[in-house]
Amino acid sequence: ADDSARSAAKVRNVQLTKPPGALGRLEELAIWYAGWRGQARPRLERPQVIVFAGNHGVTAQGVSAFPADVTEQMVLNFQAGGAAINQLAQVFGAQMDVYALALDRPTADFTAGPAMDEAEFLHAIATGWDAVDAQAGLLATGEMGIGNTTSAAAVACALFGGNAEDWVGRGTGVDDAGLVLKAKVVRDGLSRNSNALGDGLEILRCLGGRELAAMAGAMARARVERIPVILDGFICCAAAACLDRAVPGALDHAVAGHRSAEAAHGKLLEKLGKEPLLQLDMRLGEGSGAALAIGVLQGAIACHSGMATFAEAGVSEG
Amino acid sequence: ADDSARSAAKVRNVQLTKPPGALGRLEELAIWYAGWRGQARPRLERPQVIVFAGNHGVTAQGVSAFPADVTEQMVLNFQAGGAAINQLAQVFGAQMDVYALALDRPTADFTAGPAMDEAEFLHAIATGWDAVDAQAGLLATGEMGIGNTTSAAAVACALFGGNAEDWVGRGTGVDDAGLVLKAKVVRDGLSRNSNALGDGLEILRCLGGRELAAMAGAMARARVERIPVILDGFICCAAAACLDRAVPGALDHAVAGHRSAEAAHGKLLEKLGKEPLLQLDMRLGEGSGAALAIGVLQGAIACHSGMATFAEAGVSEG
Repeated sequence: ADDSARSAAKVRNVQLTKPPGALGRLEELAIWYAGWRGQARPRLERPQVIVFAGNHGVTAQGVSAFPADVTEQMVLNFQAGGAAINQLAQVFGAQMDVYALALDRPTADFTAGPAMDEAEFLHAIATGWDAVDAQAGLLATGEMGIGNTTSAAAVACALFGGNAEDWVGRGTGVDDAGLVLKAKVVRDGLSRNSNALGDGLEILRCLGGRELAAMAGAMARARVERIPVILDGFICCAAAACLDRAVPGALDHAVAGHRSAEAAHGKLLEKLGKEPLLQLDMRLGEGSGAALAIGVLQGAIACHSGMATFAEAGVSEG
Repeated sequence: ADDSARSAAKVRNVQLTKPPGALGRLEELAIWYAGWRGQARPRLERPQVIVFAGNHGVTAQGVSAFPADVTEQMVLNFQAGGAAINQLAQVFGAQMDVYALALDRPTADFTAGPAMDEAEFLHAIATGWDAVDAQAGLLATGEMGIGNTTSAAAVACALFGGNAEDWVGRGTGVDDAGLVLKAKVVRDGLSRNSNALGDGLEILRCLGGRELAAMAGAMARARVERIPVILDGFICCAAAACLDRAVPGALDHAVAGHRSAEAAHGKLLEKLGKEPLLQLDMRLGEGSGAALAIGVLQGAIACHSGMATFAEAGVSEG
């Protein structure tokens, strides 16, 4: 981040026609954004939403309430403009791109070995890296992948420890027996890939999925381009956490868009040190929570860059 | 609200391409909005933000961190487009209107008697009533008035009881001594107007202010026009609570836009039975929290009305 732009934004913030701090988190958001964009008075232009889709071999264990075919069906729905994320991207004026990653070749079942070999993993990372529009002023990454809450739970458990039960949730809607099964599958996955557990990227390769790897690649690229990122839900944050483990501070350019209803997302956000902007019991994925938070960021930046100062408006400072 | 439109919206909601309930509060918001608009698949068009400004005789007690002149200075800022609410209204495509209510004649100091006589009160209510654009698809009411957190605290304490200390907060930024003073002023006001305490509208007349009365008038008019309302912060909700006391259910067409950082706003929302959409530590007033929540409602309605159904998209229902 650009310290001089950040400092100039802080100076501007206290001159605006409002009591000090009265815009709450909007103020810190605008200053954070100004720092990353290198502009004391930035505009938020060309937000980009990217949805990455992948299939998961671990669905063979029966961990999802929906059949794996739904991943591809939903990709067609994204392309046709019929999904929730399409509507949200449109409301907030975001470009939306969809990448389907080798849906006909699901990752390997991670209870039997690594989900991806190194070539597959690097290809997924590169797909995410290349998907970022270098001209975008903001990036929200989302995902679709039947089975991927189980993958994300395994990733989170590998990164942060604790019991598998602490990290699994209902995903698209499994019942109590499904939760027990998901926990067992996570335990089996960690046991089978125990040699991966010391390294963030190895955890992502062995327990993640192509769409998780692609999200991590896109976030890394955004960092290089100084494009701020809004994180989405549990799966997006699990991918992000691998990046953060590999390179501490790698998520300084990211804010948490929301806290989802998926059980362990709040705990994952705490581990990342991110306070969510929204808490609306959403649990859809697709980048939907992040996309909704674009509106909050647009509001924050519009206030920061558009408001009059006390001097300009002739308002007494109290 | 229109029960058939609401029922039809519920039927549509479960057909949309997402796991049941996965959009969380966005789903209930869209169904609520559909009911009030009488359309199973509504559009959110022409949102209106109205800011009412008033001056308060109680500022003579020294309850505010800013001088009373700031009310008029900020009205000029609203008219020139330089305030936070101007930027937020613009981001979310809302029409913004400003009404300054007799700023040169502050209300009477309520520690000495009723803040308004009946003619003044009814005129303020009527100003609010007339300010609503009957063609608007949504209303957010906001306010500006140096001293009005003290007025709102007195109103809330009169409506809901408890100690004055439970209802006062720092407003634009008073210190600890200021808080003690505000609580004393609230106690004095309730004591001096004790004959008003049994009636919601009398509480609003005797302890409120012109801008609070105008907000209540606007909310009542919106109800008649079936225009859903987003409530703003502590002062807006205190005005709304008077209406709710006078006519139980009078706020069924309203949602809470946010929970502000003003100390007692959370408790006031609990009394109203409203769960806030946003919690971003904002405490500016002007309708700023409500305006930011317009984006959430726009997202909810866009998803509800724009998404494909499982049948339309050829997606398996799991």
